[in-house]
Amino acid sequence: MKGLTIDMLSVNQSETFRKTISESDVYLFAGITGDTNPAHIDEIYANSTKFGKRIVHGLLVSSFISTVLGTKLPGPGTIYISQSLNFKAPVYIGDTIEAKVTVKEIIKEKNRVILLTEIYNQNNALVVTGEAMVLAPK
Amino acid sequence: MKGLTIDMLSVNQSETFRKTISESDVYLFAGITGDTNPAHIDEIYANSTKFGKRIVHGLLVSSFISTVLGTKLPGPGTIYISQSLNFKAPVYIGDTIEAKVTVKEIIKEKNRVILLTEIYNQNNALVVTGEAMVLAPK
Amino acid sequence: MKGLTIDMLSVNQSETFRKTISESDVYLFAGITGDTNPAHIDEIYANSTKFGKRIVHGLLVSSFISTVLGTKLPGPGTIYISQSLNFKAPVYIGDTIEAKVTVKEIIKEKNRVILLTEIYNQNNALVVTGEAMVLAPK
Amino acid sequence: MKGLTIDMLSVNQSETFRKTISESDVYLFAGITGDTNPAHIDEIYANSTKFGKRIVHGLLVSSFISTVLGTKLPGPGTIYISQSLNFKAPVYIGDTIEAKVTVKEIIKEKNRVILLTEIYNQNNALVVTGEAMVLAPK
Repeated sequence: MKGLTIDMLSVNQSETFRKTISESDVYLFAGITGDTNPAHIDEIYANSTKFGKRIVHGLLVSSFISTVLGTKLPGPGTIYISQSLNFKAPVYIGDTIEAKVTVKEIIKEKNRVILLTEIYNQNNALVVTGEAMVLAPK
Repeated sequence: MKGLTIDMLSVNQSETFRKTISESDVYLFAGITGDTNPAHIDEIYANSTKFGKRIVHGLLVSSFISTVLGTKLPGPGTIYISQSLNFKAPVYIGDTIEAKVTVKEIIKEKNRVILLTEIYNQNNALVVTGEAMVLAPK
Repeated sequence: MKGLTIDMLSVNQSETFRKTISESDVYLFAGITGDTNPAHIDEIYANSTKFGKRIVHGLLVSSFISTVLGTKLPGPGTIYISQSLNFKAPVYIGDTIEAKVTVKEIIKEKNRVILLTEIYNQNNALVVTGEAMVLAPK
Repeated sequence: MKGLTIDMLSVNQSETFRKTISESDVYLFAGITGDTNPAHIDEIYANSTKFGKRIVHGLLVSSFISTVLGTKLPGPGTIYISQSLNFKAPVYIGDTIEAKVTVKEIIKEKNRVILLTEIYNQNNALVVTGEAMVLAPK
């Protein structure tokens, strides 16, 4: 149960995690966070927005980045320093999204890794992009 | 069910949301996201880390920012453009955290708002800090 | 984080909360309460009833009244004294229901408020009606 | 899977359901209903109230009445007409509560049953009392 140490990482290495987002995922997330924004849980309201239907919380979509960082690349022992997120397109209930994390830069003397973090939907559209900085497992 | 439009916002305006994070919040979040990093769900592993016990996922902690943005400031109709997150200190199961969102800059001609986004624990320690950019409700 | 005190309330003041009820809402509620009545969780059984499909628990539907009372009108600090509920029509999984709470009477010397509590579905049919009595926040 | 018809019921017949209320029950209920009243999910706030700690939603406590009505007395096929609820004392996370339903009056020609509905905590204190009216299963 230990992730990859700094010496085991190389630039362009990547890992992914994919999931079809269910209505129950969105509803449980709304419940845990208290984010009852009607865009997520009120179909009548959502129909009246430019998105036309209920959308998935941006931070729920983004959380799959942490799934990759914490379980695969670098994996257990990783310490999260920062994350930037740019929301490019809406994600709808029922969409299948893939989080892709790619090593961009390795700062060995500080044990730091910078990773490109992207999320795509089932149509290969980029829905979230950004960058993570982490400390690699020791 | 409409949030504050750009004309109703002013610099330094702020709103908060506070919650005691339960074990079930962390476990449901792990289930929804697939982020089964042992730091969150394996007490034996967690005891062996420098944190000493199970910590809350950084992106779960950060999600309370979206709760404030989507339900209070600016509220329903807000469109999320970007978010930066700096993880400053761990959050443990049982901690009571407060997300605070403060209007920093209003770019009226683009309908954009930049907000300072901070999360504090029950000891007033800053655990997450960053910045959000949103489109205000129309 | 304090609701409206008795002096801030006026007769006919009202607030609402609306949500599309998901299958996961009904199933989690069945799990929490142990109310495994087949009308809620057994499609074969439900098909044979006069409702024709699975219905939402009446007390789950009614709980959105408490959401309005406890978060909006009067809000945090409210103490619930009593509630009457008349179930007028079934609510189905997928319905979007709106809880509407309206101040009916203010008994200032006792700090008490009587509120009309109604729930409507997406077709504007009244599905639950009743009355709440609360102590206003101090 | 059929409950008791009107001829199988007698005055004073009673049934119960008992459960220890967990933190996760309260948190899931808050999530499903959107009732994020800080009295239920914010320990710092709850400490400052006269209750001194987080309390369970009154309508969650009351829902165990429906558990008895819908699964035991009269059981499947029961149609809920009305319910009155008087909240007598707070229920805390970790309390073990028992819902007791007792047949009070049988109106055979209308197939209606009136039942006394009471909830007690582990100290035998009455926390909720009221009355239900139902149509018995046919």
